[in-house]
Parts: sequence; structure tokens; C-alpha cells
Amino acid sequence: MGERESNIPPSVLERMTKYLAFVQELADEGIEWVSSADLAKALSVNRSTVRQDLLHIDFSGISRRGYETKGFAKVLRRTLGMDLEWNMVIVGAGNVGTALALHGDLSRRGFYVGAIVDKDPERIGCEVGSMRVLDVSDLASVIEDHDIKLGVIAVPAAEAQSAADALIKAGIKGMLNLAMTHIAVPDKVSIVDSRIVADLLQLSHAVKNKLNI
Amino acid sequence: MGERESNIPPSVLERMTKYLAFVQELADEGIEWVSSADLAKALSVNRSTVRQDLLHIDFSGISRRGYETKGFAKVLRRTLGMDLEWNMVIVGAGNVGTALALHGDLSRRGFYVGAIVDKDPERIGCEVGSMRVLDVSDLASVIEDHDIKLGVIAVPAAEAQSAADALIKAGIKGMLNLAMTHIAVPDKVSIVDSRIVADLLQLSHAVKNKLNI
Repeated sequence: MGERESNIPPSVLERMTKYLAFVQELADEGIEWVSSADLAKALSVNRSTVRQDLLHIDFSGISRRGYETKGFAKVLRRTLGMDLEWNMVIVGAGNVGTALALHGDLSRRGFYVGAIVDKDPERIGCEVGSMRVLDVSDLASVIEDHDIKLGVIAVPAAEAQSAADALIKAGIKGMLNLAMTHIAVPDKVSIVDSRIVADLLQLSHAVKNKLNI
Repeated sequence: MGERESNIPPSVLERMTKYLAFVQELADEGIEWVSSADLAKALSVNRSTVRQDLLHIDFSGISRRGYETKGFAKVLRRTLGMDLEWNMVIVGAGNVGTALALHGDLSRRGFYVGAIVDKDPERIGCEVGSMRVLDVSDLASVIEDHDIKLGVIAVPAAEAQSAADALIKAGIKGMLNLAMTHIAVPDKVSIVDSRIVADLLQLSHAVKNKLNI
């Protein structure tokens, strides 16, 4: 990975997933070139934003006609880490954990649910899709056996920190926090907070403005 | 709502939810004042970011000692639309819709699930928590009966557009899209795409950098 491709701001990464979806569609339709104006229009952003964003990637397939779609999609996938496959363990086999485990679209993006664990004896051993719920106290061996780097915290807020602590102790590298609470982690472990409440607030703010409430 | 409080960028709204959580905690502990330096430290951002963000709100409780916590929390709640209550309808009573319907933390933020609907006759009439799954073809009366302004799209990607069309026809004002696909909507309706894949990509990007993969 080149220097330019590391530490890309989250907002740019988010737009890159959208550039990729658009460019991949064009490539699939046999369209060979895409301009930054096309990208800007498809995503409803300024052309200068597109150009700034694309400074983060190493891509040589540029001509007067724009970007070569197939090669461009490939570079975007690499930049986004989508050429890698990530095995995840879900901690919490309740509604949220089960919903995520059964969400087929994640694996299309390279995120595989390798295991799901819980601490509740009534849930351990139950089936979730083709998996059985494993015991959270076996996390270390689960993570090793399934070559897991990412953990998803899908437990109630009050149990989130202890779930995170268990994941960290078991050697996890990064966590997605679906519990709506703050979790403290050491620097060596990455954590991203899910934004469902932030999404809803953004939505209600937009509706409030439109309705002039 | 003042002019300054409308059209706040999503990134600022997101930080405001975090300022609020922090300030509310201080107020609950009886701490009367908070400085922008405290806020910056608690959220790991620059003091200038905090000051810029707070230009978006109308707040007079500022002194040498900083911001008066109780009043500040109140203004943040108003700015975020959290003084309003929002009734939502969930379209899709599968795993994702059910998980969201049973997610207790949303109502603490002012988002109430008023109804859940599905098109599958086998799901209609089933219980989800204390609700019964209603028929999607009754959406217009469901929205009117429950004073619903927001809809959540929790159906598979292939059905997302028709779910959105049904919501729009029934008079919805805004939608949260949990399906991982693009949905086209008219200007009068707001839509926010859930960012679970973007969250995972942000996480895997961070882990990739740390592990130097």
C-alpha cells in the first residue's frame, strides 16, 4: 500500500465506496471511460471534491477521456481494502447480532462472519443460519481457529465494555461497536462506532428543516 | 429554529451528539461549567473544531468559565431535534427490521417505532415485541393513525426501491435506508443511507494500516 493510500479520512473513504459502486456498474456495462464530471454528477458532489479525493489513490489509467473504468475499480477496491477478506466474530447472538450474521450483503463486500458467540447458556449451541452460537469464554481459540481480525459488539450498552475487553484479551485487531455507548480501548486496537443514531439524527434534522418545525 | 441551526453539516451533527453525551454527564454529576478545551479533549478533536461547531448553535450561557452545562445540553438537544419525538414505521419484519424494532436505546433518543409492516402474508399478524406486523398495503392509514413522519427501509436490496415508493406514496417525510443499495427519491422526501458497510470499511482500513498489510 502506498503512503498516499494510508490514513484516508473517513468521509473520503465513504465517497470512495460510492465511486466504486458507480464505476463498477459502468465497467460491467462495457463502458470504458469515466470522467471526474460523471463521478461528480453521479454522487452529487463538486468536481473539485472528486479530484481531491482521487489524489489519495495511485492510479495511472488516466487520459483525456477520463479514468479507465476496470482498472479504476480495481484500484478503488485495493484502496478500500476490498481485495482483502476479513473474518469477523459477532459478540452477542441477540436480535442485532443475528440480523448482522444473516445479512448476505456483507460477504459481497469481503466481510465474512466466521463465528458468533454469546455468554448466555440458553443461546450457546443454538443455530444462526449455518453457524452454531459458541461460548464467549472460548473467544481466544475461536479467533485463532477462524483467522479472525475484526469483532462486532452486538450486546446491550451495559455489557459493551466487558465484551470489548474479552475481544481485546483474545487478540482482536479491530472492533465495530453496535452498542450505543462509549467503549474505551488501548491504542493498538481500532474501534469504529456504528452511526445508526447519528443517521437518524441527520434524517430528523433534514425533515425538521423541510417541514419547518 | 434559528437560521444558524438549520442545514448543519452531518459531520458537525455527529460531533454534537457526542458533545451532548459528555455535557449531559457533567450536568448529571452537578458540574456547572465546561470549557471548549474540555470538550476538545473528551472528543479528541481540536479546540478550533469545537469552536467552529458551536458557531452553529444559539447559546448565551457562556462565561470565562466556559459553557453552563445544563443550558448547553438543552440547546444541543433542541439543535439536534431531540426535543421533538419522532414516530417511525419499519418496512420489513425480517431480522434487521425486528432487531431495530426491539432496540430499546432508540426511544431514549426520541425515536419511537410506531409500527412495523411487511408484504409477506406469513409475517403479517406476527408479534414483534408488543407490536403486530401490519400489512404494507395499509401503509397510508398506518402512517396517519400513528402520526408517523419517518420510515426505515429494512428489506432486501432488490425490494428497497419498491418499499421506498410505497412509503412515499403513503406520505412519508424521510427515510433511513438500511438496504445496501441506492434508492431514488423525489426532492421533497429526505433519505439517509445507513453506513454499516462504510463503518466496516473504515475499520478494516484502520486495521490494515496498523498491521501494515
